[in-house]
Amino acid sequence: MRLGITEAGSGPHIVVEHEDVWYNLSAALQARDVIRDGAVREPATTLEALIAQDRMRTAFIADALDTLRRHALLDAFALPAAPTRFALPVRPGKIIALGRNYAAHAAETGHEPPKEPVFFAKPVSACIADGEPIVVKPWYGQVDHEAELALVIGKRMKDVPVERALACVAGYTLMNDVTARDMQAIDMAAAHPWFRSKGIDTFGPLGPVVALPEAMPEPLHVDITLTVNGAIRQKSNTAMFLFSIAEMLAFVTRFLTLEPGDVVSTGTPEGIAPITPGDSVEVRVPEIGVLRNPVIAG
Amino acid sequence: MRLGITEAGSGPHIVVEHEDVWYNLSAALQARDVIRDGAVREPATTLEALIAQDRMRTAFIADALDTLRRHALLDAFALPAAPTRFALPVRPGKIIALGRNYAAHAAETGHEPPKEPVFFAKPVSACIADGEPIVVKPWYGQVDHEAELALVIGKRMKDVPVERALACVAGYTLMNDVTARDMQAIDMAAAHPWFRSKGIDTFGPLGPVVALPEAMPEPLHVDITLTVNGAIRQKSNTAMFLFSIAEMLAFVTRFLTLEPGDVVSTGTPEGIAPITPGDSVEVRVPEIGVLRNPVIAG
Repeated sequence: MRLGITEAGSGPHIVVEHEDVWYNLSAALQARDVIRDGAVREPATTLEALIAQDRMRTAFIADALDTLRRHALLDAFALPAAPTRFALPVRPGKIIALGRNYAAHAAETGHEPPKEPVFFAKPVSACIADGEPIVVKPWYGQVDHEAELALVIGKRMKDVPVERALACVAGYTLMNDVTARDMQAIDMAAAHPWFRSKGIDTFGPLGPVVALPEAMPEPLHVDITLTVNGAIRQKSNTAMFLFSIAEMLAFVTRFLTLEPGDVVSTGTPEGIAPITPGDSVEVRVPEIGVLRNPVIAG
Repeated sequence: MRLGITEAGSGPHIVVEHEDVWYNLSAALQARDVIRDGAVREPATTLEALIAQDRMRTAFIADALDTLRRHALLDAFALPAAPTRFALPVRPGKIIALGRNYAAHAAETGHEPPKEPVFFAKPVSACIADGEPIVVKPWYGQVDHEAELALVIGKRMKDVPVERALACVAGYTLMNDVTARDMQAIDMAAAHPWFRSKGIDTFGPLGPVVALPEAMPEPLHVDITLTVNGAIRQKSNTAMFLFSIAEMLAFVTRFLTLEPGDVVSTGTPEGIAPITPGDSVEVRVPEIGVLRNPVIAG
């Protein structure tokens, strides 16, 4: 089951893909509440609100859609076609990104595989949705793509042990951790923070949709590819992670609290390379979808 | 004029100090709206909401209080005493912090003064209010205090020139940019990000109140001191900034967009030193107030 946000029609709302059909989930859940509880509730129109209601769960949503089907109401909420454009799936309170979490990527940047997870922050102001342009200015120097699987946090997490960490993941999405590589190299050489090279406006494409955990294989070994103008640049599988998702989350939450709606991006595999205005970049994990962003000059 | 958030009484609301008296500003503005506009509006109970209403301005607030005075209503909104406890003044979408913005601090950490502003992010999950404890665990290694003047952003800022930057500052507050120094040194040596050493839960004391720009001297040369258990550890003046506030904001917004309610912390002067459980830390700028936080073991 995959969830997304669209702005088509009467303002932003949640849509869900269930058994190959897309539904207006915000409206469907409101109808479900009337039928089951005899109450009209304010509909959840963001995934953050759905998480806060503890409803971003496959079993709950499937049951709600089934209730509507039994009342012959489900078709009324079906979309005529799959949405072609999704808005940002969440507006995270923070974005934690892993560095050097694939050995072959650590090697291509001239580093040993780290002994512990390495993490940094990207600002939410960097986030753009599927289809929105990555804006590159000449003075940024070389700008690289970085395809990443990303997690949406579903529960408050602090000092969470490895064995309980995965239960706090609400779903899976994609991030392109766009990086101003020359700027990062200058900052690393000066022992300066990494932040600005990772935090430039539009350097955080995120989406297009969120796949719920039941839509993902167990163990979580998924193919991740990135193409530029159709040519494959990055191609790996999350089986190559140095640290598992549970290990990352346990480690990060020793330091800081993750909140529902926060995003954790799991690091990029080898094959990072420059992007320039005119390029079209696609990050793909088959179980989630394709995050497409053009690159334009700023 | 200084603004703060208190949770005393009927839930969080804004209080303001005007001519040495503190008022319930959330309630006062609601009364002002009835008198002036004949309308009951939802009261602003956060500074973010006050900023969004374009009301976080000395002239507007002074006029509103004067309106109430002329109707003999002002005293009804006066607090019996100055609040002794303030909640977090804002819950920033992001916190940008300057590194090495005083030459003497750059020198004490073994670095040349930077040629351009150096900035990084702290996560909002690190923020604690005045009076709340900084929690230090043994495995963090050495933990240092860093007294800083901080800005609350009042307008969306992107590529803002130096001469227009100060007009985007809604007010001034204090931050203690608490840093796990050993961890930072390890990360710098490995060319790793600075983030975790700066982003630990409780490592971002912020407050206690926000002074509006008219309460600050022009030019912005204010004394900043930090004491531990009453003994002065840091003592400087913002006249010693390497980069002015306008220069910092112009530089940062070449990279990323600052949003209303974001916080920019302006860097720490020399004198950083360890804090340990049992300590009491105070950051002071006379025009703003004192940010007090105990240190406890975690």
